[in-house]
Amino acid sequence: MNDGHVTRDLPIVVVVGGGFGGLAAAKALKRAPARVVVIDRTNHHVFQPLLYQVATSILTPGQIGSPIRGILRNQPNTSVLMGEVIAVDLAERCVVVDCLDRDRVRVHYDYLILATGASHNYFGHKEFEKYAPGLKNLADAVAVRNKVLRAFEQAEGEEDPARHRELLTFILVGAGPTGVEMAGAIASLCRITLRSEFRRIDPASARIVLIDVGSRILGSFSEDLSAAAHKQLEELGVEVLLGQGVEHVDEEGVIVAGKRIKSKTVIWTAGVTPSPAGTWLNAETDRSGRVRIAKDLTVPGHAEIFVVGDTATLDHDGKPLPGVAQVAIQQGRYAGRLIRRRLEGKAMLKPFRYFDKGNMAVVGRGYAILQTRVFRTSGFLAWLAWAGVHLQFLAQSSLRVSVFVQWVWTYLTGQRGSVLIVNHLSGSHTEAKTEPVPLQSSEPVQSSV
Amino acid sequence: MNDGHVTRDLPIVVVVGGGFGGLAAAKALKRAPARVVVIDRTNHHVFQPLLYQVATSILTPGQIGSPIRGILRNQPNTSVLMGEVIAVDLAERCVVVDCLDRDRVRVHYDYLILATGASHNYFGHKEFEKYAPGLKNLADAVAVRNKVLRAFEQAEGEEDPARHRELLTFILVGAGPTGVEMAGAIASLCRITLRSEFRRIDPASARIVLIDVGSRILGSFSEDLSAAAHKQLEELGVEVLLGQGVEHVDEEGVIVAGKRIKSKTVIWTAGVTPSPAGTWLNAETDRSGRVRIAKDLTVPGHAEIFVVGDTATLDHDGKPLPGVAQVAIQQGRYAGRLIRRRLEGKAMLKPFRYFDKGNMAVVGRGYAILQTRVFRTSGFLAWLAWAGVHLQFLAQSSLRVSVFVQWVWTYLTGQRGSVLIVNHLSGSHTEAKTEPVPLQSSEPVQSSV
Repeated sequence: MNDGHVTRDLPIVVVVGGGFGGLAAAKALKRAPARVVVIDRTNHHVFQPLLYQVATSILTPGQIGSPIRGILRNQPNTSVLMGEVIAVDLAERCVVVDCLDRDRVRVHYDYLILATGASHNYFGHKEFEKYAPGLKNLADAVAVRNKVLRAFEQAEGEEDPARHRELLTFILVGAGPTGVEMAGAIASLCRITLRSEFRRIDPASARIVLIDVGSRILGSFSEDLSAAAHKQLEELGVEVLLGQGVEHVDEEGVIVAGKRIKSKTVIWTAGVTPSPAGTWLNAETDRSGRVRIAKDLTVPGHAEIFVVGDTATLDHDGKPLPGVAQVAIQQGRYAGRLIRRRLEGKAMLKPFRYFDKGNMAVVGRGYAILQTRVFRTSGFLAWLAWAGVHLQFLAQSSLRVSVFVQWVWTYLTGQRGSVLIVNHLSGSHTEAKTEPVPLQSSEPVQSSV
Repeated sequence: MNDGHVTRDLPIVVVVGGGFGGLAAAKALKRAPARVVVIDRTNHHVFQPLLYQVATSILTPGQIGSPIRGILRNQPNTSVLMGEVIAVDLAERCVVVDCLDRDRVRVHYDYLILATGASHNYFGHKEFEKYAPGLKNLADAVAVRNKVLRAFEQAEGEEDPARHRELLTFILVGAGPTGVEMAGAIASLCRITLRSEFRRIDPASARIVLIDVGSRILGSFSEDLSAAAHKQLEELGVEVLLGQGVEHVDEEGVIVAGKRIKSKTVIWTAGVTPSPAGTWLNAETDRSGRVRIAKDLTVPGHAEIFVVGDTATLDHDGKPLPGVAQVAIQQGRYAGRLIRRRLEGKAMLKPFRYFDKGNMAVVGRGYAILQTRVFRTSGFLAWLAWAGVHLQFLAQSSLRVSVFVQWVWTYLTGQRGSVLIVNHLSGSHTEAKTEPVPLQSSEPVQSSV
């Protein structure tokens, strides 16, 4: 329809993944003499660094998700396909896509950019996932939000104080940025937002436990910032257990260093595993499965295939680049530019160099830590910097305003934007149940609601 | 915890349902000498008249759902319990509640207000529900939104033009306010919002079919307003099929008057069935199952039990009151006030009188019809009145601002707030799939993406 003006024999660049890396690549190809196809499993880009705010009811899913089509609307050489890539046919230069409710299709590429990211890593204990969901996409965040809010609802309906304790214990496994940010946000939820909404339980009495096998939280930050964040968490009433691995997770809670902590709400924030891009390409990977790429971000032996972001590994000044949004964005942009220059027959780019803009994490309301190559700081000013940088990056301008309004509102009043349990399982009682339910007076009678 | 100041021997008023009727009742009991317990299956009140805007991506679920606890936060005599009432024990004056992941509990009442609403009515064809979801709660609205947006995504990935036609046909069964409002909103979605986001399909070519067995749309409005709305729908490109019943619904579409219309997106807006309150109470009901109540809204023979809103029926000036929010609100408030007066030993209220404030429906962007006892109008001014009245009623002040901003934004730019497909079924590929997928070159190769 709208691509009538695109010449049919233009080379095709396929970008797999609509995260930070894939979008940056697609945007860098805006004026390239090529047809660009962006493939993603969902119809939206997610601003992953703020997922924890959806999981803790501060923001709505719509505030951090933007439809990929909308972002690329004004890029006529680019089309978007919703489907899941499950393989790459190197010989025929095709990606194999599982489409929505349809048969597989094969999409031909002349250039391929794999920006397929990472998902949760349960370190061989996939059975933990059922009890300890992770936080990688909007569906995860809504599921965690439901789980956290339901725990309070269940506790309020429960007469046994011992059960209150279990229901109001929240465990975060892994003290990286997501674990720390979740812990801080759950603490504010309990102590401020929900303070006066219950009659039988006191949400402020909730126990929040952050567990990590390492010797300090936020290991990617300097020791002083890590210590400052630790102190701040403890002021918010978060228990931090360090040097202790979680040995087991089940519906009763976790076992840490041989001791059980009972909890109905365990959240897994302990690590990531790359997408199977290495398997698709039959390429050399590091131990965790990330594809080893060359300094121009291509896969050795395949000048037409690029891998960027969390699913790739590249040594930089002697150590592997971290799995953060900035790396994905800069790599995606580099890959897009390099392909454009090749297609235009221009001189090649210098090898990829990562420019480290710094690193931040939020610890509760109005407190953050900030580390750049030249300075470090913590506290309210760091939080303002954090808020500014994140608003800056939110992909769509109308979202930016609404997130800003919501943050100011939440900061001033403690009220959150989306304290909803939206659960497809609860179902509606379609058509009247005409069978009367047998009454058993053995059921407990609530005496003190 | 917080109810230490409530005397233990106060009478208990149980309100079942946190919709318009139940909330109005609970609020009217704010200063009553009683302990009030509000029980709902979800943790939030839903502003049902705007559900269609969530289903068509204009608003987010958070913009029309407010947590019941938040609404009643400053009402110390009131507690909220999340759970589903499944029976009433009249002899022991208890409601039986299915709680979250727990055994049933029984909650004692001295007074009982049932405001349990209504759900979809498939007129004996419950098997249609799988293919034609209805629109009664936020989970429904998100499911319909996913279905509509996925249809466009699937069509864009599809090469066969005949399949495009099926995928881009949207059928609404039932031309009451919800059907008409959905039809108008889907039309604007196709013609304006999604206009330039696809490359292979043209969303503006979508076919939108509104079907009703009656002789005109919006049968509860006057004939001239109904005709005006009909004309407006046709200007938006909606096909209106009247006097024709839907005989069958399956995954291929519907059969209407013996003719099949192929469609992947059928939405059921054809009628409601009351909650099983009549069965719980073993009370007299009308043919559709609504409880016949007395002029003081109690159930004959039970001066302590009130039934209000869509799950009750009451003749008023010779005909039954309609199933609209205003009736539920006024009845809920009346029941709450009457109980308070009884508890305070004051003179009783006059029999319930419904004050009809008028009736409205929106047909597309910036057009509504408005009917009151004294005048009727249609067009942009009616739409402004509609917007004002609906903003007025939204339960929570912070929501009101955000809905207003979103409406102005959507009106001016055509952009919508929440074009997201958030699907728990799609799942994340946790832990790398290490098995390579066998490549079959028989799969179709996309040549024209």
